[in-house]
Amino acid sequence: MTTSSHLIGSDTEATVHHAVMQALVNVNTGHRGAYGSDERTERTRQVFAEHFGPCDVYFVCGGTAANVLGLQLLAPQEYNAVICSDVAHIHSLECGGPRRSLLFCPSVHGKLTPQSLEPHLEHMGDKHHVQPTVVSIAQTTEFHTVYTPEEIRELADFAHTHDMYLQMDGARLCNAAAALGCSLKEITADCGVDVLAFGGTKNGMLFGDAVVFFREGLADDFLFRQKHCLQLIPKLWGISVQFEALLSNNVWQENAERANGEAAYLGSRIAELPDFTITQPVETNAVFADLTVTSETLRRQMIAKIKERYPFMIYEGQMRFVTSFDTKREELDVFVEFLRALQ
Amino acid sequence: MTTSSHLIGSDTEATVHHAVMQALVNVNTGHRGAYGSDERTERTRQVFAEHFGPCDVYFVCGGTAANVLGLQLLAPQEYNAVICSDVAHIHSLECGGPRRSLLFCPSVHGKLTPQSLEPHLEHMGDKHHVQPTVVSIAQTTEFHTVYTPEEIRELADFAHTHDMYLQMDGARLCNAAAALGCSLKEITADCGVDVLAFGGTKNGMLFGDAVVFFREGLADDFLFRQKHCLQLIPKLWGISVQFEALLSNNVWQENAERANGEAAYLGSRIAELPDFTITQPVETNAVFADLTVTSETLRRQMIAKIKERYPFMIYEGQMRFVTSFDTKREELDVFVEFLRALQ
Amino acid sequence: MTTSSHLIGSDTEATVHHAVMQALVNVNTGHRGAYGSDERTERTRQVFAEHFGPCDVYFVCGGTAANVLGLQLLAPQEYNAVICSDVAHIHSLECGGPRRSLLFCPSVHGKLTPQSLEPHLEHMGDKHHVQPTVVSIAQTTEFHTVYTPEEIRELADFAHTHDMYLQMDGARLCNAAAALGCSLKEITADCGVDVLAFGGTKNGMLFGDAVVFFREGLADDFLFRQKHCLQLIPKLWGISVQFEALLSNNVWQENAERANGEAAYLGSRIAELPDFTITQPVETNAVFADLTVTSETLRRQMIAKIKERYPFMIYEGQMRFVTSFDTKREELDVFVEFLRALQ
Amino acid sequence: MTTSSHLIGSDTEATVHHAVMQALVNVNTGHRGAYGSDERTERTRQVFAEHFGPCDVYFVCGGTAANVLGLQLLAPQEYNAVICSDVAHIHSLECGGPRRSLLFCPSVHGKLTPQSLEPHLEHMGDKHHVQPTVVSIAQTTEFHTVYTPEEIRELADFAHTHDMYLQMDGARLCNAAAALGCSLKEITADCGVDVLAFGGTKNGMLFGDAVVFFREGLADDFLFRQKHCLQLIPKLWGISVQFEALLSNNVWQENAERANGEAAYLGSRIAELPDFTITQPVETNAVFADLTVTSETLRRQMIAKIKERYPFMIYEGQMRFVTSFDTKREELDVFVEFLRALQ
Repeated sequence: MTTSSHLIGSDTEATVHHAVMQALVNVNTGHRGAYGSDERTERTRQVFAEHFGPCDVYFVCGGTAANVLGLQLLAPQEYNAVICSDVAHIHSLECGGPRRSLLFCPSVHGKLTPQSLEPHLEHMGDKHHVQPTVVSIAQTTEFHTVYTPEEIRELADFAHTHDMYLQMDGARLCNAAAALGCSLKEITADCGVDVLAFGGTKNGMLFGDAVVFFREGLADDFLFRQKHCLQLIPKLWGISVQFEALLSNNVWQENAERANGEAAYLGSRIAELPDFTITQPVETNAVFADLTVTSETLRRQMIAKIKERYPFMIYEGQMRFVTSFDTKREELDVFVEFLRALQ
Repeated sequence: MTTSSHLIGSDTEATVHHAVMQALVNVNTGHRGAYGSDERTERTRQVFAEHFGPCDVYFVCGGTAANVLGLQLLAPQEYNAVICSDVAHIHSLECGGPRRSLLFCPSVHGKLTPQSLEPHLEHMGDKHHVQPTVVSIAQTTEFHTVYTPEEIRELADFAHTHDMYLQMDGARLCNAAAALGCSLKEITADCGVDVLAFGGTKNGMLFGDAVVFFREGLADDFLFRQKHCLQLIPKLWGISVQFEALLSNNVWQENAERANGEAAYLGSRIAELPDFTITQPVETNAVFADLTVTSETLRRQMIAKIKERYPFMIYEGQMRFVTSFDTKREELDVFVEFLRALQ
Repeated sequence: MTTSSHLIGSDTEATVHHAVMQALVNVNTGHRGAYGSDERTERTRQVFAEHFGPCDVYFVCGGTAANVLGLQLLAPQEYNAVICSDVAHIHSLECGGPRRSLLFCPSVHGKLTPQSLEPHLEHMGDKHHVQPTVVSIAQTTEFHTVYTPEEIRELADFAHTHDMYLQMDGARLCNAAAALGCSLKEITADCGVDVLAFGGTKNGMLFGDAVVFFREGLADDFLFRQKHCLQLIPKLWGISVQFEALLSNNVWQENAERANGEAAYLGSRIAELPDFTITQPVETNAVFADLTVTSETLRRQMIAKIKERYPFMIYEGQMRFVTSFDTKREELDVFVEFLRALQ
Repeated sequence: MTTSSHLIGSDTEATVHHAVMQALVNVNTGHRGAYGSDERTERTRQVFAEHFGPCDVYFVCGGTAANVLGLQLLAPQEYNAVICSDVAHIHSLECGGPRRSLLFCPSVHGKLTPQSLEPHLEHMGDKHHVQPTVVSIAQTTEFHTVYTPEEIRELADFAHTHDMYLQMDGARLCNAAAALGCSLKEITADCGVDVLAFGGTKNGMLFGDAVVFFREGLADDFLFRQKHCLQLIPKLWGISVQFEALLSNNVWQENAERANGEAAYLGSRIAELPDFTITQPVETNAVFADLTVTSETLRRQMIAKIKERYPFMIYEGQMRFVTSFDTKREELDVFVEFLRALQ
């Protein structure tokens, strides 16, 4: 009962994958160096190199932190700015955490194009304006859609041409890679991404995110920033061993594929319902939908009824139903029947 | 081998207590509300009330964060200041995290007295000066010494008389309570402490600290600050169940007593060594020592040799040897013999 | 020659009015209390009370500072936000100075309506979102248009109903009052404005702006913020005597009327030109215009030619021609003939 | 009467020198480019080059700002720190303006030595510690004493050897140069100072300070910081023409010499008084003194009586009597007789 009420709310409400939890239990055998100086964290750094190619990796406590610390490093002054989409969660859902001005661009299904960035070049060098130094994209996007490698490369090229960096929020990078059938490297380092926030909490970890630097020298001062920004915990191995488990034995991929598959199923079922419409391409692990009933009052009533039973988020006016690696098909069926019965 | 090299470095290098780890394994049974909205976190809040009396509790990722968020709430503007001791780790070891001016007071064994605070009253109301709004103390102190309840009460009274708050860094509060043979409440809420940073990582937890508010209304906006400061993780129950385990079945107390006991033993053994002197009262889980050799060169060489084999921290020029709940007596003996053989 | 090249660029390029300069010369007779403790600054505070009714007044160095300090006081935490128009210069022209998140609303001729603010109420109380605590408007707007007293009152009522303040950027408040034929009080205190940034530099002063608080108790800590934000200069009487001169003998009104009158004239002349169109109502001291030529290349060439001879600002894609109290009619005629000859 | 009550309070309470005021009147002849784009500001930059050698100069509103902006540029991150003396006014009198951690060194007569800086090298590279990147000194010091060129050079060498910069607060640089009988360049650029805050308000200007960069490339982003920190005023020529007047016709030197001379006189007179002792060398334009009466109560009473008639500042427990270029000898005599009559 408790479980199903959290069914489609968010992948952050899912369980910890058993391989990840087991890794935590297994590592707890004796004293270990603090703050990342232990050999297990070192080993995890090598696992990252196997998946991403040469990179500098730092482990922080959460996804907001992974984004913010990367962005602050790329936009080091308070008069620097971050270019992002008009639906970017770093604007709407991070409570001012970045401490930098954001410059918005129109987006389609949450995705930016080089063309959409151009207006922000106009004031470069003008002392009255904040100066953009980084473009930030989310893979998957806030609408759980996916950039192709080519699209990312174009954005990276545009950014680099104009002396900016490309930062990627990869809280659901595994879902994107699974959807594209590619490696994690092929949609990050290979496309010119400079800094990645790589998250595991939405794909089977308990907590912890990684900030991954693909450009040499960028991360030189990162540890000071990490400490200053309250993100350096003593038993850092508690994060790194989780990542090691996630990135081993294809756990990351299988989890993501399973989550994506359930969303595909859920989307196809909701699409059949007479009063529902799918509002975004279902590319990874979420279904965005709206009601097609003509009465706004009725629409609000129906949404409230669904929320009461199955809490979920409304993003940019659309209902968001999220699946995860441990979503149960039969519970989705119950959910769909619940939706059908609403009408 | 690996283990013993971390023997006396820090209690942050110790293992996770088995009851705490088991709680993490046990809780992982299904989807749960994110960001502290789950029933297990609610239950932990009640456990805090049983130990501390009426309070508002928030769970953050680490000890620096627990201190900084409490201090920022009590010193909400950048022109507010925090009064602390001249050896305060919020000055020396938090990498500027508080983002507030610190005003230092002389201390004895790391402890402040009301008298030591007085000079900072002089500029209250002067627009050219930062304005102190909070006194911050550590229980145990940076020298692992302990304030008595009376000493805390005097500081709280002084602070309140002068329109300031009293904040306590309780990263090792359990060790202090165990040493004093009192409850956690008797050295916090009962003494007039306004905000407590309560840590478990140094006493058997994996990660996570609590910010505990004893004054009604103080915490009203805390969640926004928590999110803004990158401290609101989704699977917050991962922190709260650890605290519940620590605060149940006397785990907190037994762990602290064991750690304190090992330090007492270690202190007594080091005191016997001809070239060593104990520099601070051994009241909880650390021994501060120095070498009495007259040659500074020899002193440095000997310290370097110890550090090479047993990495430890030098704080204010003194060697700090720390014990924890899982310190093994026989390893301490080996360590002492190693010290003796140095000479 | 030098003069005319600055003819229509900005009212910030105009001279200092002779009455203001004379006041500076006259006050320089002996030592005076620093940081606002002198009797002349006290007298100027009374002059403000005569014009605005009961208020607390502080003098800062510039307009950006007057806005930022007022806004920071009303949005005291970094997770607080400021609601403003989509063309607000606090976004585009203050280089991140406010250090607060901005939430944008659609505007018409630069003006907000209560309805345009409503979407930002949605996330009040949600810990993931910055929390708006103040609505900021500019009188005149960035397009030099004017809010009526009724319009301001509606915005103030809306803000207050939703526990927010109304802040007004009055860098050109005199121009607005002159256009409306009302007193300064009738479009500020009388309409529910909580905090005003009142500027004189664009109306005959050398430097210095005032932050005016109409709500008791709001300004209690202002001096600390003023000092912390680098805005407390020693010879503060150098600002206050200028304001006294501006607010005496109707200087503020005559200067504003003259500037407004010249813009009305300029607008009527430009409206006659075949290839120009007026893009905003000419209500105070600026004419916003665009070219109607169909070729974008030609348009850009023509704009570049004008800018070369008469530097001006393009705001939101429109040419902005500004007049001031010392604009000479005959120079405007030369300018118009220059525009006509372009084609 | 009014005048004499401000006699020895501070050089910030003095008048504006007539040559400076005349320059303001003279420049007010027509529209001029804003924000430093005018030809008079350009000319002043050349005047700075004549006095200081090759340098980049920016004009800000006040002395706190000149220090803070320079320091922030040299310590660009919040985890960077500034090393300064234990009596530094950037700690005690700037209300947290620098927004950086300060690391204190013991000083003699307000002066640092390379040796006093050494302890702060210890934690360089340690991620738990703020990282010092700049040493800040004041010339004259807070006790109005003077560093010799050799002393400055030693500090600069030490700083540079350890990858730090040397910043100088030159709010009273003219007084120092006059006392040493050298040029402004000989105690700044020639000694290895990297950034200077050069003030004129205490030596005859109305407002405005200069940030002077002696190292190429350092100032590249300064304008953005200046705008972001609320220090870019439109009619910037209002500052630059004052500096031009101050630096022309030896006004800076004559003013400083006159102020220094009056302090020398005042010091010699106070030294004769039976109950007074001079506590700092009188090297420029201030006399620091204390009472030698044995009763602390009587001491406080006498100090209160002096303050009532002649308001002054107590700095580090000592009375500070300041002279300026327009101090009148006969008023000093009256003051001394007043002091004598107290006993």
